[in-house]
Amino acid sequence: MRKLIGVCGSDSTDKELSSATLKTAEEVGYYIAQRDGVLICGGKGGVMEQAAKGAKKGNGLTIGILPGAKEKANRFIDIAIATHLGYARNYILINSADAVIGIAGRWGTLNEISYSLNIGKPTILIKGSGGWMDILSDETLLKNLDVRPHIADSPKEAVDLAFKLSQ
Amino acid sequence: MRKLIGVCGSDSTDKELSSATLKTAEEVGYYIAQRDGVLICGGKGGVMEQAAKGAKKGNGLTIGILPGAKEKANRFIDIAIATHLGYARNYILINSADAVIGIAGRWGTLNEISYSLNIGKPTILIKGSGGWMDILSDETLLKNLDVRPHIADSPKEAVDLAFKLSQ
Amino acid sequence: MRKLIGVCGSDSTDKELSSATLKTAEEVGYYIAQRDGVLICGGKGGVMEQAAKGAKKGNGLTIGILPGAKEKANRFIDIAIATHLGYARNYILINSADAVIGIAGRWGTLNEISYSLNIGKPTILIKGSGGWMDILSDETLLKNLDVRPHIADSPKEAVDLAFKLSQ
Amino acid sequence: MRKLIGVCGSDSTDKELSSATLKTAEEVGYYIAQRDGVLICGGKGGVMEQAAKGAKKGNGLTIGILPGAKEKANRFIDIAIATHLGYARNYILINSADAVIGIAGRWGTLNEISYSLNIGKPTILIKGSGGWMDILSDETLLKNLDVRPHIADSPKEAVDLAFKLSQ
Repeated sequence: MRKLIGVCGSDSTDKELSSATLKTAEEVGYYIAQRDGVLICGGKGGVMEQAAKGAKKGNGLTIGILPGAKEKANRFIDIAIATHLGYARNYILINSADAVIGIAGRWGTLNEISYSLNIGKPTILIKGSGGWMDILSDETLLKNLDVRPHIADSPKEAVDLAFKLSQ
Repeated sequence: MRKLIGVCGSDSTDKELSSATLKTAEEVGYYIAQRDGVLICGGKGGVMEQAAKGAKKGNGLTIGILPGAKEKANRFIDIAIATHLGYARNYILINSADAVIGIAGRWGTLNEISYSLNIGKPTILIKGSGGWMDILSDETLLKNLDVRPHIADSPKEAVDLAFKLSQ
Repeated sequence: MRKLIGVCGSDSTDKELSSATLKTAEEVGYYIAQRDGVLICGGKGGVMEQAAKGAKKGNGLTIGILPGAKEKANRFIDIAIATHLGYARNYILINSADAVIGIAGRWGTLNEISYSLNIGKPTILIKGSGGWMDILSDETLLKNLDVRPHIADSPKEAVDLAFKLSQ
Repeated sequence: MRKLIGVCGSDSTDKELSSATLKTAEEVGYYIAQRDGVLICGGKGGVMEQAAKGAKKGNGLTIGILPGAKEKANRFIDIAIATHLGYARNYILINSADAVIGIAGRWGTLNEISYSLNIGKPTILIKGSGGWMDILSDETLLKNLDVRPHIADSPKEAVDLAFKLSQ
């Protein structure tokens, strides 16, 4: 059975998404593929598309867990799972991933990350990628919570942690 | 068609749940019923049970959207929707509510609140109830996000806002 | 906790739906309400609407488990559960019902009845109501299957069986 | 994007499953892989396991859409999608497949086939494989239904039809 690494983050409608963050997403996808992991993501634009692009550059396999029809998948998705369950697809994505990496993100990404931490999946957030991931990287914010995400400073560190924590 | 007001918050395994917060939940349920609203919640213990208890005190109707079998519903639930979808039930709960009130909460509650804000439901958090609701009541934290919750200081204010915003 | 009786059947796009079958659906809804049961159905037109109409005539409570938004509920639905899960809502409907009654129906209704029998819910089909329910009422057809539905000849008999089998 | 061909049928608890039917399932999987299709199935035993075994013999890729944890996947599954949605996973499986092939089966398989026909997916049943597929291969039974499955007499014919109908 193949190892599936989930990548969650803003889609292309997030105006705060910087080119640096998109580069981060692409590198995360690349490193996942290089380590023979399968990228699993929400299948749409923005962070998801760049991560899938990176995975294909690394000759990897990409899965998109889509809210609706497979025609909406980005062009780097190999396997489109067309759930037609709307954003309940977030739950399937998180359950199927062996570890989850968060990049930037708004409420939709926070939804995925909160599922991941609620379920107890290894969850790694990339500090400095923007949005909710930056908010959640603040240790003082999380000090009263029992379950906390792992924080990574780079794509390489995030992917290394994802593989290490899902052994 | 009846108006459904969602209440989300920690279940009974949250050690941080104070008696003041449980009282808050009960009052929220009571005021929902008094205004002829139907309480819809996750159907389990803690905040959910106290809110349902309050709604029954107010002669209201209570719905529990359960992750599994209806035998797990708390004793104040009239209508048990046994989804058998695990925590994907959060999505159904939020979609069905005309407005959502958050009380205390850990990652599971944050999952519901993030669904609510992602979808654009009227979402009211009770400040001072603890957990994630207190974190999310900090205006500086949310200043960079496009979509923000409403903040209420009391059960009465929260329920009034829920009815007003879902007209 | 209230007893929920599920009613499944064709929506209004089924051209084979006769006025006799719609009358059957209305009577089923009426008898459910008379026995203090809550009608739970898919919330849309045809058999679902007539059953809900009957339940309201009997002063009962009606729940619609909708595939999408609550605006699509028929006018006799009190509690609209807006799943936004498409036809995965069939699974929730069946899981939540204490017993299931089938009337007429095409592939969508067969989907609900097959869930019900697969899960082992008490499942009653009304013979003579048309569509798949008539096909499935043929004992020779089912003779090789381990799990079989109950067959009723009238609305009254179907509702009596539903209450008896879900005690 | 890869083409996904769904295979539905009894799991290993079906006592009526013959060795001929298991051979049929294996051949279906093999031909799917030979034509560069990806096998998508429920990921468990019986027909699902044999189809996945055949796909691996043909050097193909296999996806299992599981009701629960990925540890329950059969040993021929490459990509385990752990939905934790119980049998609502049937809906995801059917929505994701470009065409669906049915082999033998009880109520659970009928649930998948009815989803497929309700949604309007190309649906091919293998006549003579037993269970519901044999019942549904009887043309007189289906003569009054608007939407009908395609009937194939062999694994090769079924896979050829699946590719042809999903172009």
